[in-house]
Amino acid sequence: MSRISSRDLLPRVLKGDVAAIARLLSRAEAADPECRETLGEVYARAGKAHVIGITGVPGSGKSTMVSVLARRLRGAGHKVGIIAIDPSSPYSGGSIMGDRIRMSELAGDEGVYIRSMATRGALGGMARATLDSVDILDVAGFDYILIETVGVGQDEVEIASASHTTLVVSAPGLGDEIQAIKAGILEIADIHVVSKSDRPDARSTISDLKQMLALGISLDSSAAWRPPVVATSSMKGEGFEELVSALEKHRAFLRDSEAGRARARKIAEFRMLKTAEDLLRIRFKEHSASRVRATADRLMSREIDPYVAGEQLIEGIGA
Amino acid sequence: MSRISSRDLLPRVLKGDVAAIARLLSRAEAADPECRETLGEVYARAGKAHVIGITGVPGSGKSTMVSVLARRLRGAGHKVGIIAIDPSSPYSGGSIMGDRIRMSELAGDEGVYIRSMATRGALGGMARATLDSVDILDVAGFDYILIETVGVGQDEVEIASASHTTLVVSAPGLGDEIQAIKAGILEIADIHVVSKSDRPDARSTISDLKQMLALGISLDSSAAWRPPVVATSSMKGEGFEELVSALEKHRAFLRDSEAGRARARKIAEFRMLKTAEDLLRIRFKEHSASRVRATADRLMSREIDPYVAGEQLIEGIGA
Repeated sequence: MSRISSRDLLPRVLKGDVAAIARLLSRAEAADPECRETLGEVYARAGKAHVIGITGVPGSGKSTMVSVLARRLRGAGHKVGIIAIDPSSPYSGGSIMGDRIRMSELAGDEGVYIRSMATRGALGGMARATLDSVDILDVAGFDYILIETVGVGQDEVEIASASHTTLVVSAPGLGDEIQAIKAGILEIADIHVVSKSDRPDARSTISDLKQMLALGISLDSSAAWRPPVVATSSMKGEGFEELVSALEKHRAFLRDSEAGRARARKIAEFRMLKTAEDLLRIRFKEHSASRVRATADRLMSREIDPYVAGEQLIEGIGA
Repeated sequence: MSRISSRDLLPRVLKGDVAAIARLLSRAEAADPECRETLGEVYARAGKAHVIGITGVPGSGKSTMVSVLARRLRGAGHKVGIIAIDPSSPYSGGSIMGDRIRMSELAGDEGVYIRSMATRGALGGMARATLDSVDILDVAGFDYILIETVGVGQDEVEIASASHTTLVVSAPGLGDEIQAIKAGILEIADIHVVSKSDRPDARSTISDLKQMLALGISLDSSAAWRPPVVATSSMKGEGFEELVSALEKHRAFLRDSEAGRARARKIAEFRMLKTAEDLLRIRFKEHSASRVRATADRLMSREIDPYVAGEQLIEGIGA
């Protein structure tokens, strides 16, 4: 089978052809230079979907919550794309557990598209690849695009923030280290979700969270949006109407508002920087192997320091 | 109090003056341009310490294991520096729990220096800041430098790999999501540590791990180093002699060998790339605000695509 060019894939992607979407996503993830121009066209056409970043500590029940949320949005007639950043390995093939479970639940519905990205060690940065993938699903006609990341790790948290609405998922009964990590991601939330609300200890998790947030609010009373706390039970299917309504409220809050424009600018700046970083990384690996090697050798022997080596890398590439 | 220049701090750092070390570390973390030249000098002098990257999933007992290991190395007469990458927040001040516990255990010993980095959202990348910090502790006379990261997140795992010896810590009795994450980081290990070996379910964790590794070995029988599995109990203080001996073996394996040179080159290349990325990020934030803003606006309005914006960022900076 001859390889179809990305340019020729695009019309099929625009019609929502699943096989074409999958191919273009793979090329975008791999940072294939052949698809770059097409991704530019995709970007020019994108911007209709509402992008929801979802993060939370391991064990918070994110993946299950996301699949229930996707079903609800689907039930309301929306097409839903899910991009799950999978922390597992590209070497070992990865064990994409959450995804497998969801695949079976949501399988056979053309209005739901799930993509798992096991990007560790991949050529091309995760943030750049994720945002390019969001665009592809956007132009393919998905109304809501959910980006799910494990909320530990600088990149992962940044990616969840590079969305229109960011959900941070908490859950009762997690360990100390997990709780400390959780504290670090709360401030990126537009909406807090406490999952597993069917558990008896959920009530205290919710009130602790509200108390913490109340402290924050008193410090910044000028904020126009106060992140609500929504309790959900994926097992019982409870709380999702409230969650969807909170999502709609936040979406309305951003629409044609200064807050919305500020958010869009923040995302554009993040994207510009991440794409530049990625271009640097790609060229580092592809185009100037001997030059990179020579500079690395001088760095190894401590003839030059990392800042000089870094400058040389940027200059050599920018020139 | 007038501000001491980084150049003037250096002689005190070289003597191991704790206050001077702390100051230079803060400047390095903040990517303060004033200290860059001094960091270059630091780099030129560094390279004596053995750097150990330690990672593992949340709940694996890393932090406690690291503090027991530090005491053992200390007991053998070595000076030990610890850099803990803290996933908590710079906004909320962070809850540096593990660190607080350790501080009390290791406090008052001048031969141990602990630095917690809560770098999320900080100016300057985590990897660059960590490796600059390693150099500072190196020239300050620390023999072993332990870098501890939570092994979830692309950056965090990369940082743990950018060391001479990488330990991956596992533990019995973790949840499914955590286990999936764990599977993704096993291949970076030079030494596997199963902590909490006093737990009754530790035996099966150890045998599962050995089985997994045996599968990997059969695929790559040419590997000159086979990562051993060491069981430790921080509570009972067991297994640490074996762990220190495994560390020494790995250190000897790298010494004056092709494997050691390959490792050093890999670290140098990683460092060059991360420093370049960081320079890009710093300049993005500091020097060309109006230009960045104009490009971001054009990106927002979809006049240009992210690749064009990224190229402009690199070119504008490299020129």
